[in-house]
Amino acid sequence: MKVLHHEATALGTSLLMQRDTPREHAELQARVLVDAELKGHPSHGLQRLPRLLTRIDRGLADPRATGSSRWRSDAVLEIDGGRGLGPVVAMNALHLLGQRVTSSGIALAAIHNSNHLGMLAWYVEQVAALGHIGIALSTSEALVHPHGGTRAMLGTNPLAIAVPTAARPLVLDLATSTVSMGKVHHHARNGRPLPEGWARDADGHPTTDAERAKSGSIAPFGGAKGYGIGMAIELLVAALAGSALAPEIRGTLDAEAVCNKGDVLMVISAASAPHIAQQLADYLDAVRASPAAEQDCPVRVPGDGAAERRAHSLHNGFDISPSLWAELQALTRSAPASPASPASPSTHQGQQQ
Amino acid sequence: MKVLHHEATALGTSLLMQRDTPREHAELQARVLVDAELKGHPSHGLQRLPRLLTRIDRGLADPRATGSSRWRSDAVLEIDGGRGLGPVVAMNALHLLGQRVTSSGIALAAIHNSNHLGMLAWYVEQVAALGHIGIALSTSEALVHPHGGTRAMLGTNPLAIAVPTAARPLVLDLATSTVSMGKVHHHARNGRPLPEGWARDADGHPTTDAERAKSGSIAPFGGAKGYGIGMAIELLVAALAGSALAPEIRGTLDAEAVCNKGDVLMVISAASAPHIAQQLADYLDAVRASPAAEQDCPVRVPGDGAAERRAHSLHNGFDISPSLWAELQALTRSAPASPASPASPSTHQGQQQ
Repeated sequence: MKVLHHEATALGTSLLMQRDTPREHAELQARVLVDAELKGHPSHGLQRLPRLLTRIDRGLADPRATGSSRWRSDAVLEIDGGRGLGPVVAMNALHLLGQRVTSSGIALAAIHNSNHLGMLAWYVEQVAALGHIGIALSTSEALVHPHGGTRAMLGTNPLAIAVPTAARPLVLDLATSTVSMGKVHHHARNGRPLPEGWARDADGHPTTDAERAKSGSIAPFGGAKGYGIGMAIELLVAALAGSALAPEIRGTLDAEAVCNKGDVLMVISAASAPHIAQQLADYLDAVRASPAAEQDCPVRVPGDGAAERRAHSLHNGFDISPSLWAELQALTRSAPASPASPASPSTHQGQQQ
Repeated sequence: MKVLHHEATALGTSLLMQRDTPREHAELQARVLVDAELKGHPSHGLQRLPRLLTRIDRGLADPRATGSSRWRSDAVLEIDGGRGLGPVVAMNALHLLGQRVTSSGIALAAIHNSNHLGMLAWYVEQVAALGHIGIALSTSEALVHPHGGTRAMLGTNPLAIAVPTAARPLVLDLATSTVSMGKVHHHARNGRPLPEGWARDADGHPTTDAERAKSGSIAPFGGAKGYGIGMAIELLVAALAGSALAPEIRGTLDAEAVCNKGDVLMVISAASAPHIAQQLADYLDAVRASPAAEQDCPVRVPGDGAAERRAHSLHNGFDISPSLWAELQALTRSAPASPASPASPSTHQGQQQ
């Protein structure tokens, strides 16, 4: 079924507000989830909301927290997220970095003790919209085996980079695994085999059985090089944020544990001459116009696909499984979750996406 | 044939000093080239020295220049390399970043107008030896086709990251292409076919003919994701350094043009608690000890192979083709290149590697 973005954002906002989430925090969290749906990445979309609500109910996520921050040095911000919602803590961090970067030129936030950020593209896009370069790194539960190994030892450790240009910014957002564990689950639900090379089972043997892969591990992307980048992110984030390493990480995929992964956000002034921004845009257009390997499959640059899907879904709505939509509707509470939570019944109005 | 590192460093130093290079600059440049040999990467080793000497002779490289620098903001250093030797300009940049990072926590240098840096691992290792995190990015001539494309539009755009631990640092150093163009040339010289998927010819058709690939393009590593990372480096470096984009870049592979690529160096304080450095080391050991996919091929972490080869070659010498060694010997001049160049005949003493 199709859902319009403002309906989905309003429902998500309402569900969060009914659980003691301030309106501003609820809207932000809902928008980040819906933005992933619009970009065609439902694994980072509304299917994560029921678990997040349970985490709030159990005190594993504090929807009022914005995190407490301290400048470790002039341009490095240390943030204890206070179990806050990932987008709330991260956007607060970006706000502080954005103020600092006008004098420092580069600034970094190292975040621990916050919940899942969702798609990292969201954050670097906000940075690029202000004319800066944005970089975001996160760690996660051990799901990826080393190149040449068979046991899950690394997180899917995503990386996002946005570079502003005179036209649309370049937006890169990728996990350092061949696929997401969400995609493996999707294949399992649909009884479809996995392509060879994607996964190993719990005993470390290569498997194309999606059901067996769920308890096993995923391959890093790009062989030794992709493994190396995932490993560098693993260490960089832990070294800077003091967060856990993959085998000890919990709380981004469950509703049982406090989230102990880490995030690193960087903002860099692209203070160069304006003609450079034009050169970057012209270069990306030249890449897009360069000869394609397959007819009818023009060359793309990172972020093109997501931007096109988002533009289309903004007007036409996005696909969502009827059962997930019904599950979300059923989570609506008729009364506030607690006396301290004055959830307004008037939140079902359209939100600007 | 085998050559000992101090013989090679002494010869390289001498050849450079005979061409008006100050001793300190000559030793540094020679050591960076020899270090690549020791790590088993001859494509970034002494085979680049004859071309560099020609570049000096033609005024395309100024061996005396250290670059002129300006703090664009508190933590971003802008460097015009003044056609200097890559290692000289880059080590000068790292020295300045190292001073600044004690107060800023993170500092970045954007370099243009300097010559080829050689293997980036060298630089991030120097940073890690001081207890900091190092990141290095470079751009280069268009040699890589886009994912889904057929024409060389990107550089091989290498990335290096070092993260200090309580034991050996993690050291990642990779090109964002499937292989280096050096390896393609190596296959061509030996009449060996290329594996499928490595390269396309000048017409954009896939080829396993190394000779045809030399005028064509190389695939990015890791499909769309590796392409995305290479593209992000392309834009990041150009945006920050104001350097050229791949299709316009010249001067890292020829002796005809001033070098107009860019480099970005970052230093980040790993100012965390000491127990974290121990946790990182323990984690890397756990990864190394995790089950291997193939017997007798234990799991490695980035930098292990290079460190082992280097340790071995330091004691046993490294392999070099007799023709290259003879070519280097023949470049020795009996007299200074110019009256202003008091090249000492006593440079053939061992240099500490």
